[in-house]
Amino acid sequence: MSMDILISKIKAKNNPTVAGLDPVADYIPDYILEKQRKVFGHDVKAVVEAIYEFNTGLIDALCDIVPAVKPQSAYYEALGYQGAKLLARTIEYAQRKGLYVILDVKRNDIGSTAAAYAKGYFGKNGYGVESVTVNPYLGTDGIKPFQQYCEEAEKSIFVLVKTSNPSSGELQDLPLEEGMCVYEKMADMVSQWGRSSIGEYGYSNVGAVAGATYPAQLQALRKRCPHTFFLVPGYGAQGAGAADIAGAFDENGLGAIINSSRGIMCAWKKEQCAPEDFARAARREAIRMRDEILSVLNRG
Amino acid sequence: MSMDILISKIKAKNNPTVAGLDPVADYIPDYILEKQRKVFGHDVKAVVEAIYEFNTGLIDALCDIVPAVKPQSAYYEALGYQGAKLLARTIEYAQRKGLYVILDVKRNDIGSTAAAYAKGYFGKNGYGVESVTVNPYLGTDGIKPFQQYCEEAEKSIFVLVKTSNPSSGELQDLPLEEGMCVYEKMADMVSQWGRSSIGEYGYSNVGAVAGATYPAQLQALRKRCPHTFFLVPGYGAQGAGAADIAGAFDENGLGAIINSSRGIMCAWKKEQCAPEDFARAARREAIRMRDEILSVLNRG
Repeated sequence: MSMDILISKIKAKNNPTVAGLDPVADYIPDYILEKQRKVFGHDVKAVVEAIYEFNTGLIDALCDIVPAVKPQSAYYEALGYQGAKLLARTIEYAQRKGLYVILDVKRNDIGSTAAAYAKGYFGKNGYGVESVTVNPYLGTDGIKPFQQYCEEAEKSIFVLVKTSNPSSGELQDLPLEEGMCVYEKMADMVSQWGRSSIGEYGYSNVGAVAGATYPAQLQALRKRCPHTFFLVPGYGAQGAGAADIAGAFDENGLGAIINSSRGIMCAWKKEQCAPEDFARAARREAIRMRDEILSVLNRG
Repeated sequence: MSMDILISKIKAKNNPTVAGLDPVADYIPDYILEKQRKVFGHDVKAVVEAIYEFNTGLIDALCDIVPAVKPQSAYYEALGYQGAKLLARTIEYAQRKGLYVILDVKRNDIGSTAAAYAKGYFGKNGYGVESVTVNPYLGTDGIKPFQQYCEEAEKSIFVLVKTSNPSSGELQDLPLEEGMCVYEKMADMVSQWGRSSIGEYGYSNVGAVAGATYPAQLQALRKRCPHTFFLVPGYGAQGAGAADIAGAFDENGLGAIINSSRGIMCAWKKEQCAPEDFARAARREAIRMRDEILSVLNRG
């Protein structure tokens, strides 16, 4: 079962965190961009190559600390076809360094189109990532084609349940007539979708996205969905701290992977260290984050 | 107001339909693929160039009949970075022929990431399309960055409300405690998001996706959201006919644009005409579809 692959990497590194790779030009030290501008001038290629240097620098510095990376597709797509190529190169580099790649795409569509997305992201001739995020608004039709890859090619998915953003409640918190709210219903659907794929650690291939910015809901979801692994955004730059994510874990200290994007990528700015030290600053922040999270885990 | 731009193109061509551009290799006549294989062998470039020839052939044959095209991003993304470049070239070609481009991406994310998507799709250095589809699961945060482009750069969006696929009801039809169901609540949110951008034809920049495969709900939505323009999938290959879409229109014969993808793209197969005649077959189907839809419009 593919979620087992992620969990075994988490156990091997004793670190339930994933480093976001969301390349915003502003996060990248000037000296990198200037170097590439000397080669490519004001072509988008300068930005693309600067991001690649930044990403691979981060991956090199983090790959023995974190089990996984999460590129956010939007930032690559914003660079057009050169961004798509950059994404593919980044994924390949991370995989070569032994990292589990969760591509944050939040895709959703009718069956035939969801199948095209699944093939594009999971397929051998596509990006070939280990995991993607998906949006459940269209129901089972939009999930099934991804699930097929989970079963046949050891992939995993994370379905949006309770997102970390301020307005997530507008739809997700609406109380349903049947006596639960929308995100709880989605959590139950996610459990159902994962029912037949529970692996050796007790978690299915169909995970859920549940934000650290709603700690009470996160804790309640852990109890509600004992076989659903959580991808937890919201820690760090979005405002949640270690106490907020404790409830995402089970009594064995498993059950969730916590994401930090800006926190790790921009550690060099927060530290006010030399820009050339950006990768080591990211590593220091990843270690600090790991230790902080490990300190709050309830382990049996 | 940007939705006015689409509506004026619909009026000018007296045709409320949009042609989907969802390039599946199987839809393309063999002779085109073989020609490109002679140049590019078994490289993905052969498929990419075959699709470009197919797409531009369709656009040439349709551009005086239909006001808009709707590329489905999934099929381009499935081809990696070369697919992204193909998408950009297809969009540019369609715009050069005067077509309004609705890019079907169904994007959704937290505010900062939604802003990156909006910039990538609407921005001058991005794909620069006129309109995109978005998914509302994350609430206002995921919509606002797109709305900003609607207001400042004459763009429009279509928010998923009631999708055309068989399982759309699993979430969308759930009855809420407050006495309406989820998709009706979303429709009300879409009306609210569009409130301040109602143009000269009475429709806002924030449209809704509502499937022709649920005709009763489509008709009820028309009454519920008098200022929301509808993008209506499901006609043709997905099973809905002209009678099913009649309720999407207002008493002036406006208020909706009906999509057909496979129906138009694969008309040459259905007609069993010579493959070389694919573009004229698409044109014949687009004319037939237009006339069928015009025959059921309630016009005052």
